Amino acid sequence: MAPMMLINGSARGVVSPLDRGLAYGDGLFESIRFVGAEAPLWSRHMQRLEEGCRRLRMPLPDNEQLWHEACEASHDLPQSVVRITLTRGVGDRGYAPAASPLLTRIVAAFAPPSVNTESYSRGVRMRICELRLAAQPLLAGIKHLNRLEQVLARGEWSDPAIAEGLLRDVDGSVISATMANLFAVIDGELRTPVLDRCGVAGVARAEVLAACPQTQIGQISMKALLEAEEIFLTSSVRGILPVQSLVDRNYAPGTITRKLQQHWHNLGFSMEQAG
Amino acid sequence: MAPMMLINGSARGVVSPLDRGLAYGDGLFESIRFVGAEAPLWSRHMQRLEEGCRRLRMPLPDNEQLWHEACEASHDLPQSVVRITLTRGVGDRGYAPAASPLLTRIVAAFAPPSVNTESYSRGVRMRICELRLAAQPLLAGIKHLNRLEQVLARGEWSDPAIAEGLLRDVDGSVISATMANLFAVIDGELRTPVLDRCGVAGVARAEVLAACPQTQIGQISMKALLEAEEIFLTSSVRGILPVQSLVDRNYAPGTITRKLQQHWHNLGFSMEQAG
Repeated sequence: MAPMMLINGSARGVVSPLDRGLAYGDGLFESIRFVGAEAPLWSRHMQRLEEGCRRLRMPLPDNEQLWHEACEASHDLPQSVVRITLTRGVGDRGYAPAASPLLTRIVAAFAPPSVNTESYSRGVRMRICELRLAAQPLLAGIKHLNRLEQVLARGEWSDPAIAEGLLRDVDGSVISATMANLFAVIDGELRTPVLDRCGVAGVARAEVLAACPQTQIGQISMKALLEAEEIFLTSSVRGILPVQSLVDRNYAPGTITRKLQQHWHNLGFSMEQAG
Repeated sequence: MAPMMLINGSARGVVSPLDRGLAYGDGLFESIRFVGAEAPLWSRHMQRLEEGCRRLRMPLPDNEQLWHEACEASHDLPQSVVRITLTRGVGDRGYAPAASPLLTRIVAAFAPPSVNTESYSRGVRMRICELRLAAQPLLAGIKHLNRLEQVLARGEWSDPAIAEGLLRDVDGSVISATMANLFAVIDGELRTPVLDRCGVAGVARAEVLAACPQTQIGQISMKALLEAEEIFLTSSVRGILPVQSLVDRNYAPGTITRKLQQHWHNLGFSMEQAG
């Protein structure tokens, strides 16, 4: 089914082939989980989008307008993921950003990806990607449109039994999965990688950090991760997914993972309740 | 004037807002200088485009088809720059690349940028960018659509008297300008930075390397660059541009720069002859 889509507010809108989003990946996006007309993490998504605009020196979006367009696009879907794409619009040729760009906004609603209940109850299988994320502090954390690293990393495997791939930085430290953030319980403490040089600071990660303010944000080595008591992935689209195995190590979903799945359920994401 | 443009061969074509080129910057581009119906560096552009397709694991394009479309798009312009954009097309949601993607190709012709004759005769002024290019060997050299680093670097200055900005890597080594490659004559030898970790390996750079096979490709420190006898920039769109000044240092276009400007002229790019 073709997604319901609004381009600059119009269902009949088109994207110019000269848009800087297409020419240079010059823009940002958010993938926002809707349950009916509710988006429990909306304000966190807007917060990250604004941070991205500040970093890319783009004008801030009109949140009210985005909310109305997201509701309109997702109106006919009981469950949906609304992707908001914001680009620097059509500009002159060349990399120089215009002083006052007219942003392009695309708001499109999709059916959520299907995740089987076993992924929530028993967990998912994970591999380790060869690709190392490059360190670029100016782009780290924000959800910009330059995602070739994720595309190449996700292209490393095609086995549908493997749900995710672990991404490391150039020093070998753990950063995230290809489309989710990662948390681990190590020596009884909840930890998640610092994302000041690479990686995307997910909205679900921010929610977990708010729910568990004692979480340690820092470097996590592969050795420490492999010896973790619990590992779970966080995604605003998929929720809290326990990691069942990483290469040849096995993990059981533990009490902290279950507690956060319950938290997710309480936010209003009923389908992502552990089985 | 709106550019003449063909999308998948059609002048009435549109780009889907769901195209992976827009969603993730998942694709490549070439900016090709045409003089009438001739594109002296065409085969080098096609070589780089193919290398990019191999690296991104995209099917190779049909060069004959691209040539015909480039000629059609540029037909009415005595001088033009043809931008070919090739994306992985419309795909499923998520980073995973399809096994057999249907590529999107956009072929658009523009009037060339105006470069004043003094830039060729006396040279251009250049600054040093704060932004450091991240090291990603898997993407280094190819002209992919993830160009936020260039956008941010070019956004560092707005003084029209400054033509270019010098980009360095995380170690401080010289890499290139924001939209051109860089060569320097140091202790009598022609040198250009190695681009195996970051930077774009330009088609004009390849042409210079073929014309001057003794060129040393390696690391160039800022200290060595500042003490160079000659510095020049290479761009398939703008040709050979001497650097007149870098911050507070001044340089005079030397014999090697002039020889390569003559070479450029002999290739058929008559307007880029030194004054």
